[in-house]
Amino acid sequence: MYDNIKVIAFDADDTLWVNEPYFQEIESKFCQLMEDFHPQHTVSRELLKIEINNLTHYGYGIKSFILSMIEAAIEMSGGTIRVEVIEKIIGFGKEMLHKPIELLDGVEYVLKELNGTFRLVMATKGDLLDQERKLVKSGLEKYFHHIEILSDKKESNYEKLIGHLDIAPGEFLMIGNSLKSDILPILNLGGHAFHVPYHTTWDHERIDHEIEHPNFKQLVKISDMLQYLI
Amino acid sequence: MYDNIKVIAFDADDTLWVNEPYFQEIESKFCQLMEDFHPQHTVSRELLKIEINNLTHYGYGIKSFILSMIEAAIEMSGGTIRVEVIEKIIGFGKEMLHKPIELLDGVEYVLKELNGTFRLVMATKGDLLDQERKLVKSGLEKYFHHIEILSDKKESNYEKLIGHLDIAPGEFLMIGNSLKSDILPILNLGGHAFHVPYHTTWDHERIDHEIEHPNFKQLVKISDMLQYLI
Repeated sequence: MYDNIKVIAFDADDTLWVNEPYFQEIESKFCQLMEDFHPQHTVSRELLKIEINNLTHYGYGIKSFILSMIEAAIEMSGGTIRVEVIEKIIGFGKEMLHKPIELLDGVEYVLKELNGTFRLVMATKGDLLDQERKLVKSGLEKYFHHIEILSDKKESNYEKLIGHLDIAPGEFLMIGNSLKSDILPILNLGGHAFHVPYHTTWDHERIDHEIEHPNFKQLVKISDMLQYLI
Repeated sequence: MYDNIKVIAFDADDTLWVNEPYFQEIESKFCQLMEDFHPQHTVSRELLKIEINNLTHYGYGIKSFILSMIEAAIEMSGGTIRVEVIEKIIGFGKEMLHKPIELLDGVEYVLKELNGTFRLVMATKGDLLDQERKLVKSGLEKYFHHIEILSDKKESNYEKLIGHLDIAPGEFLMIGNSLKSDILPILNLGGHAFHVPYHTTWDHERIDHEIEHPNFKQLVKISDMLQYLI
């Protein structure tokens, strides 16, 4: 069934390396900073609203997150936030941009095994510069043909990606931790998709139903994919 | 000499459509806002410094520009800037993100003529979401095979791009308005490059010498490229 796969696309954040916990850590620092105005859970909920609203303007990634935190700080303080808080938020962002890379278990082994047999690409949302920097720091760059940055991970984005790779949807396999972004749109297009769960997921990426589809495999860990491909 | 060209890459901002004047317009509004603290030319100079310094953190694009203006406002006011000014800066950014597209003369005609004979790609710095949005609004999407976002336009970025397109450097032609970003790195790699000047260029993109190279053509307007290719 997987004999005709030509390109395997790997999601990056929380599939190859740790990401979401860093956002959660900074969000928690932000909520503490804003405690003078609102309880932490209220700040967290309002921030999520502003982030989702800003996706249409800014897209995904750390810069968008910084801008949304600044906006939330101004809004939730009724315009009385101190400038030092805004400076701190900018500092949080720069801190995130320069975090070390923590690879997830089995990732390098899997890439090494598949490299040569398949064309491997990294397919991610977020800022290109940031993702490139993470790929270089990760030491995994040598395994990938190139990076594909998607402004969103909807069907239309993947359709363009598959067209641009000059392959048929059935020759494409995507692997990632988000059912909403990495799996469902691919299955709808006739591609193949493997899900490797990560212990924490951004609220905006959650879906609440199970997937059953002939082109879908639920994995426990990333190295489980090898049994289907090699 | 151009018989073996397979891919033609077009820079987007100030090659396909107006861009730099929008940045200049917002910068001028920003300098006016900051006049209580420093003369406009001082603000402009300091902002440029902060922008260039932030390129390594944030890369290119409007979100980076907003974050740099916020940082400049805080720094140049000694931390006394009013929160309303920061709100205005965020508003400037959102205004820029939703500007209408103003195509440059001859662009659509050129794309129509070349489409079918060559694989056309748009190769640009900046944010993918923003550039995709501009491409859709421009009505030019149908002429391009895909968009290539580069985190920077240095030789190493173009080297990866050409590798990813699976072509040789001599089969690649780039056209753009920045000698520094669109022309010199390509010539160094053995590719072909055409320069179409635009009436205004960001200070950080300027170079102060003439180019003479067998693979280089200086054009006056974009439609001048057709005589070499068709």
